[in-house]
Amino acid sequence: MPPPRRRPFAPGAPSVNTPPTKSFPPLCISDILPACFYLLGYILLKSIALPVALLGVFVTANADEGQWQPYQLPQLSSELKRIGITIPAEKLADLSKHPMSAIVSLGGCSASFVSGDGLVVTNHHCAYGAIQRNSTADKNYIVNGFLAKTRDAELPGGPNTLVYVTEKVENVTDRVLKGLSPSMSGRERNEEVQNRIKALTAECETDKAYRCSVPSFHRGLEYYRIRQLMIRDVRLVYAPSDMIGNFGGDVDNFEWPRQTGDYAFLRAYVGKDGRPADPSPDNVPYKSKDFLVVSAEGLKNGDPILLAGYPGRTSRYKLPSEIRFARDANFPVRVAEMQADLAVIAAATKGNAAHDVRYASVVKSINNVLKKTQGLLDGFARKDIASIKDVQDAEFRAWFNKPGNQQGVSPTLLADLDAAIAADMALSEQEFAWSVANNSDLLKSARTVYRLALEAAKPDAKRETGYQERDLSFIKARLTRLEQSYVGSVDEARFAAGLQRYQKLAAKMHPQGLDALLPAPGAVGTLYKQSELGDTAKRLGWIGKDAAAFAKSDDAFIQLAVKLHDVTMALENRRKEIDGNLERIIPQYMSAVIAWKKSQGKPVYADANSTLRVTFGTVAPYSPRDGIVKGPFTTVEGIVEKHTAAEPFNAPKPLLDAVKEKRYGVFKDPVLNTVPVNFLSSADTTGGNSGSAVMNKRGELVGLNFDSTYESVTKDWYFDSDITRAIHVDIRYMLWVMKEVDHADNLLKEMTIKYPRK
Amino acid sequence: MPPPRRRPFAPGAPSVNTPPTKSFPPLCISDILPACFYLLGYILLKSIALPVALLGVFVTANADEGQWQPYQLPQLSSELKRIGITIPAEKLADLSKHPMSAIVSLGGCSASFVSGDGLVVTNHHCAYGAIQRNSTADKNYIVNGFLAKTRDAELPGGPNTLVYVTEKVENVTDRVLKGLSPSMSGRERNEEVQNRIKALTAECETDKAYRCSVPSFHRGLEYYRIRQLMIRDVRLVYAPSDMIGNFGGDVDNFEWPRQTGDYAFLRAYVGKDGRPADPSPDNVPYKSKDFLVVSAEGLKNGDPILLAGYPGRTSRYKLPSEIRFARDANFPVRVAEMQADLAVIAAATKGNAAHDVRYASVVKSINNVLKKTQGLLDGFARKDIASIKDVQDAEFRAWFNKPGNQQGVSPTLLADLDAAIAADMALSEQEFAWSVANNSDLLKSARTVYRLALEAAKPDAKRETGYQERDLSFIKARLTRLEQSYVGSVDEARFAAGLQRYQKLAAKMHPQGLDALLPAPGAVGTLYKQSELGDTAKRLGWIGKDAAAFAKSDDAFIQLAVKLHDVTMALENRRKEIDGNLERIIPQYMSAVIAWKKSQGKPVYADANSTLRVTFGTVAPYSPRDGIVKGPFTTVEGIVEKHTAAEPFNAPKPLLDAVKEKRYGVFKDPVLNTVPVNFLSSADTTGGNSGSAVMNKRGELVGLNFDSTYESVTKDWYFDSDITRAIHVDIRYMLWVMKEVDHADNLLKEMTIKYPRK
Repeated sequence: MPPPRRRPFAPGAPSVNTPPTKSFPPLCISDILPACFYLLGYILLKSIALPVALLGVFVTANADEGQWQPYQLPQLSSELKRIGITIPAEKLADLSKHPMSAIVSLGGCSASFVSGDGLVVTNHHCAYGAIQRNSTADKNYIVNGFLAKTRDAELPGGPNTLVYVTEKVENVTDRVLKGLSPSMSGRERNEEVQNRIKALTAECETDKAYRCSVPSFHRGLEYYRIRQLMIRDVRLVYAPSDMIGNFGGDVDNFEWPRQTGDYAFLRAYVGKDGRPADPSPDNVPYKSKDFLVVSAEGLKNGDPILLAGYPGRTSRYKLPSEIRFARDANFPVRVAEMQADLAVIAAATKGNAAHDVRYASVVKSINNVLKKTQGLLDGFARKDIASIKDVQDAEFRAWFNKPGNQQGVSPTLLADLDAAIAADMALSEQEFAWSVANNSDLLKSARTVYRLALEAAKPDAKRETGYQERDLSFIKARLTRLEQSYVGSVDEARFAAGLQRYQKLAAKMHPQGLDALLPAPGAVGTLYKQSELGDTAKRLGWIGKDAAAFAKSDDAFIQLAVKLHDVTMALENRRKEIDGNLERIIPQYMSAVIAWKKSQGKPVYADANSTLRVTFGTVAPYSPRDGIVKGPFTTVEGIVEKHTAAEPFNAPKPLLDAVKEKRYGVFKDPVLNTVPVNFLSSADTTGGNSGSAVMNKRGELVGLNFDSTYESVTKDWYFDSDITRAIHVDIRYMLWVMKEVDHADNLLKEMTIKYPRK
Repeated sequence: MPPPRRRPFAPGAPSVNTPPTKSFPPLCISDILPACFYLLGYILLKSIALPVALLGVFVTANADEGQWQPYQLPQLSSELKRIGITIPAEKLADLSKHPMSAIVSLGGCSASFVSGDGLVVTNHHCAYGAIQRNSTADKNYIVNGFLAKTRDAELPGGPNTLVYVTEKVENVTDRVLKGLSPSMSGRERNEEVQNRIKALTAECETDKAYRCSVPSFHRGLEYYRIRQLMIRDVRLVYAPSDMIGNFGGDVDNFEWPRQTGDYAFLRAYVGKDGRPADPSPDNVPYKSKDFLVVSAEGLKNGDPILLAGYPGRTSRYKLPSEIRFARDANFPVRVAEMQADLAVIAAATKGNAAHDVRYASVVKSINNVLKKTQGLLDGFARKDIASIKDVQDAEFRAWFNKPGNQQGVSPTLLADLDAAIAADMALSEQEFAWSVANNSDLLKSARTVYRLALEAAKPDAKRETGYQERDLSFIKARLTRLEQSYVGSVDEARFAAGLQRYQKLAAKMHPQGLDALLPAPGAVGTLYKQSELGDTAKRLGWIGKDAAAFAKSDDAFIQLAVKLHDVTMALENRRKEIDGNLERIIPQYMSAVIAWKKSQGKPVYADANSTLRVTFGTVAPYSPRDGIVKGPFTTVEGIVEKHTAAEPFNAPKPLLDAVKEKRYGVFKDPVLNTVPVNFLSSADTTGGNSGSAVMNKRGELVGLNFDSTYESVTKDWYFDSDITRAIHVDIRYMLWVMKEVDHADNLLKEMTIKYPRK
């Protein structure tokens, strides 16, 4: 689970248990790309690590920790060669060259071009929004799948379906940090850094066709400016039935064995001038100068793989104290909070099928985070990561305290660090408590529009990140999307119950001044009667109004948002103060850590931050516990095994028939003697890597990343190469379904596919 | 699960849900050795069979179906050589020679001699009775384990701990079958066969030192007379703590991964003349002329193994109709019955710790059978064994109907067979119903002593099997042992509830005349008030009394037993009639099946019948489902993994310390790099094989058989070589615990152990 802070929306940041597809994307772990998908949480995590009992059946893996910035790959060229990658590291480092130029972001998911006409392949769950918005009771593309046999038949993906092509990455560390005064307060420093980042962003976004961002690496040690072409006419081309694309559903989420065909195809469209344009029938397919060749030759156990995509966030450099805080305090209360919220939703929607459906994705999302958080706690319980970190931390401190190893850093660095982290943890407890009290979509909407009004009064460059002109379309999209997952009575029940739970939290967790301003849980019903924000038009109507209009409104939630503003701003300012201190101290700490690692000959990668990364590894099984080996492959026979004819194990009949008749064709694996479905690799992935291209040693597409195993959940905190495994869909299964089940011959023809020699 | 018939006690045969350690050993699947252990059900079963998806991790096995009579092994010598067995098949066929002369029976469990001084190794659960009877609150050998450092300290195993050494096996088919008239009724034939068997037995049991039996093979095609030395002074030498010997307990029963140290040591004692004698301090260790050498070199994946022991009962030659009957009718009602009985026991013992303890082993036993029966149903659901048998059956019938293939059999054989099987199934439904109504230990005791009185009035040779002079001591032992697992109020609740359930069974299941004789469920309390059979002395006091004494008794249960006698005898006589018919028809059918198999060049083994058998196979993992491989080894690290400090996962601290300190010594496997605990093989085993010696290619002891995997449960009905695996304790783990944890240096010294070369 990502750490609790999400700056663009803090302190009103959503708790992890707020619903998806509404104002605040709750599982978005990207600070850079606002349009991140709620489905992100689905994905890729970190490792638990049991002592791997070596079995008679060998488990061998080159499990390679590291989510590398492409420019770092030449440092790793010998390691790449060792595992069998033949594509030169220098070529992988060049974003303008194949294959990296074919790797794109969907804003929360990863994807890649697979034809010169802008054909994009990603996960089914990443294209789910586009499938869902085109589905009706008559034409249910979720259940039946969708295939455009011609370009004309391709369907609009909607405003949330975007393709980002990274065109330029430049190191702007100097421009962000140069001349910052050591005497600045944390908040002053944080705001100055944000202002510089905004300026760098504005300078880069010369054109509506581009989206720029300036993410920090190593928690503020370096800053890179990333310029991405933002293609905003993206259409749905093909998705298998969710009986294939989501086979196993929530039951199999994070699990292995897995037999999920989690893939779908989109197409990027641009104006006739070749530049991004608003959706229009006049647009033409984007000419993707590079695209991935597809290899139907597949992989076998032990083969090397490359994986490229946009991992969201990891916490690999956390201190032992932070791990203990997560394990002993933060995660347990979050688990309890999610369970309580789920119970309230269940009770409030009970007996009303329409309400049930409207909250289905909310519940799914909470369950997903709950499973991930519980998985982290299970992982912490099974492997004492804090103690492992204690040892590493002690080794580092011993090295650091030797003469000559404190170059360029404050002599009180380690003490300052510990103090800053302690302050961070204390504040995050109050932020969590606030998220419990703030468990209302109407209140969040009201706070968003009020904040927008306050920020809009400033010059654009001075506005808070997330509330600038450039963010307006995203805010509108979120406020609109809320209608798909909102019911007044359910929101009221959640808000009231959240307030009750808030009252029971420890006193130290209550933000100063907040309690007096919150409504009594019993008074919540009145608020809903006296608010019109549940109506989408009314909600959107507040965009563009000034603060005075808010001050005189008699809408109960607008009034509440105004009333709460100062207290939440105080929280936000404390966050800035603490973050500013962390941004001053942690880069020094990280530079010392990097120097320490360098002294051991080890390159260092930065924590994931939703920027383009490359990881590599091998196809490999693992032993989750003594006496068992899992993977590395599943097969179509496994679908038949699990098929019950009831969701989520309801495979389509044409697929079952094809298996029964052994119509494997060229997709039959010579070792398995059947069609492989999913496979495991030791690559280092996390949320955001959904849809990432899995490539063979030559950079050819052999699969898509879509999940990781339950035992891997702790990998965001500690990478245990023995048991961390990412789950990929095998390209041979995709091609087999396209040929034998869905007859997507037009796409098979459009892609460049290398078939195995007979 | 064995078929419902258990002739020695039918029709009053215990239902599978009657408790252990009392009058009737409910899980006894031996028709031959009355003193069979209730723990038998624990053990080894048959296979489910999913299509094994071949994985990148290979699953290879020489899974060798067949529980061979030793004399058959020379027919299999090329197969033995192929898998790597170096000991000549001819040697294995000779019971008087090593290693077979070292293989013994404990009457329900298997075991082997491991020193020339009568030292016997078997499973912990096979020696459990001996451990339990010597344990007190002060000296709790169950919890703490027991080790006799000297011979003097060895403890009496009690009357139920016996060692049987098979000395002679002779084919007596002619003497059993010669001259039987085809015109005999089924019952006449059955009784005549039983009389001849009794005569053959009596002729052989010339001496109290010997126990003889005449089991049938292939359901009456052949009869062998087996003469066993019965050693009746057997002492407990060493048992590890049940935290080792029963690590994982019921939770892990039938499961893999498994880390159970299921072993214990006994010693056979005889009189100074070297012949079996009643227990006495004057006795001396039995001089076992042959014993197994122990090999601490261990095995690796793919190595061949030999396994010798006394498998109880299998049903490999059942007709498809019998499988469907079990799957659709018999097993489902049995599962429901066991669940209901467990619920009644739970309610009746609730809140009373002493009662709870007294029924613990009863509950354990029912749960064990329940899990096995449920496993069979799961297996039937997962693999359509009936359809597989349909194909085999059709092939056989097609072969049989060809000219020349019906030599020496009735032309109406197949029609006669189908009719006899149908009659058998119909009767077994009534026998089951009777077992539901008969769910009282007091009633069963009363019926036993009354039947004994009736039989005792006849000349010994004419008495019913199970009630002859030779059986008396076993009957006494069972009636005495009941006191360990009996509470009046609980028995009353079970009886009343059983009667209620009986009333709800379909009309066709009610034996004629029974309903009118049974007490009303509400009247049961009165019976218990008016009976003294709950008192052991009173119960035993009825042994030796005549029928007249019973007739005038005012003990309510004695009265009930007398009243029920005619109806239950009618059931028993119908059973004899049907069995007699089966015994006439099935041998013809089996001889045709054997001829058919012979025409394909395949030798045929007889279903297990508690006689000495040899099976062989290889150390092998298996794939229970797509994407997962289990086994073949677990390790001591797996114990640490599972250790929770709470039963049944509470490993002793000295063991945990030894693992932590990696004190593996010579027991470290070179591949696993640690001490192996349990391993899987493809050998063909079933209940009764508990404690069987697992030998390497040279006939050296490398492990003990103790369980099989859940997926193997259907193997009693159909052997699926892909997934059938037996679970063994690795000798290296036993030796390691003896050295590092329990310091059993005296035994390590006494055994002949081949250590690996350094």
